[in-house]
Amino acid sequence: MSVAEFDLKRNLLIRAKHNSELVRFITELAGDRRITTAAFTVIGAVKRAKLGFYDQEKHEYHEITVDSPHEIASCIGNISLKNGKPFVHAHAVLADKSGKTKAGHLLEATVFAAEIHLREFKGKKLEREYDEETALSLWKIE
Amino acid sequence: MSVAEFDLKRNLLIRAKHNSELVRFITELAGDRRITTAAFTVIGAVKRAKLGFYDQEKHEYHEITVDSPHEIASCIGNISLKNGKPFVHAHAVLADKSGKTKAGHLLEATVFAAEIHLREFKGKKLEREYDEETALSLWKIE
Amino acid sequence: MSVAEFDLKRNLLIRAKHNSELVRFITELAGDRRITTAAFTVIGAVKRAKLGFYDQEKHEYHEITVDSPHEIASCIGNISLKNGKPFVHAHAVLADKSGKTKAGHLLEATVFAAEIHLREFKGKKLEREYDEETALSLWKIE
Repeated sequence: MSVAEFDLKRNLLIRAKHNSELVRFITELAGDRRITTAAFTVIGAVKRAKLGFYDQEKHEYHEITVDSPHEIASCIGNISLKNGKPFVHAHAVLADKSGKTKAGHLLEATVFAAEIHLREFKGKKLEREYDEETALSLWKIE
Repeated sequence: MSVAEFDLKRNLLIRAKHNSELVRFITELAGDRRITTAAFTVIGAVKRAKLGFYDQEKHEYHEITVDSPHEIASCIGNISLKNGKPFVHAHAVLADKSGKTKAGHLLEATVFAAEIHLREFKGKKLEREYDEETALSLWKIE
Repeated sequence: MSVAEFDLKRNLLIRAKHNSELVRFITELAGDRRITTAAFTVIGAVKRAKLGFYDQEKHEYHEITVDSPHEIASCIGNISLKNGKPFVHAHAVLADKSGKTKAGHLLEATVFAAEIHLREFKGKKLEREYDEETALSLWKIE
């Protein structure tokens, strides 16, 4: 089994900046506060977003454009290191005016309002490395 | 960056009462146990629910009525203070018999069965205040 | 109110095995590491899956087959004891190439890649017991 253990450092509640790009916002926050490992959730609303679907055969992301305001009905993500730098991996479920959803890998999202709950971990650094089987950067856990 | 830091108090696993209204149930729980700051997730099922979509232009909630049994496929929320009282903010993804979803801001939901995982925080109180730009009550974090 | 309190033991970040069945993977992990109470989230992708919708009248699960690759846009779950053994209860939102979702109770899922964030609790054991009203195994909390 591939399990990395961490002690909890702090719980952060964060108000994302209006009009910021959410993935970059969290990445910069991690850089500024020297957060190397974390897990987070987000609720709120976006003005627009780009989601991804990973093609498991072709090994490439297919993009899904969401070009209107949507609620962030769910967003779950984590921070670990990729090439030594904080890397954000998040998935989201977005909902429109009728409650209809679009979901997938979160590529980018323009924040209308967003509340982030981030749990910062202490412990050994967790790096991503290229995985042959999936062609994804997955956690290097021995 | 607008970040509030908290230490973790306890993890609570809670069985919501059959036929209770979920948002009120969590709000009353917070009041009874003097919980002022928390983050939570819920899974379970509802008999019916009301979701909201915030109109980013008109600055008002549009209601989405869900008048049949649905699974709570996801529910992510937090507790902070609004006018000095515990205030619950939650978003949910609901799923019907065919797996089809409706999602958004959780206005109310009648519980069939629901399991809540709540993390209570200790630290400075976190208040909501009116935000001009969005016309929403957002976290006051300096 | 039915509330069980726990202290946090560790945060585990886990890379689920390619081609493993996710619910069994987490159940076996719990058995191997003697985890009796926990809460977790998962993001990633599945090759195929089976979701459930609980019929609140007939008191039986209706199965929803997802027979193509999907992103795990959200997965929220917990571990407690059922008949003295670790039992996994999870709900998921899956998304296809166009971002369209299927969601519900997670019966099984074949992992393409999946990142699990699990919070292990210490404290009194939490058992499930048969609940007359819903015909489900719910948490026994007095």
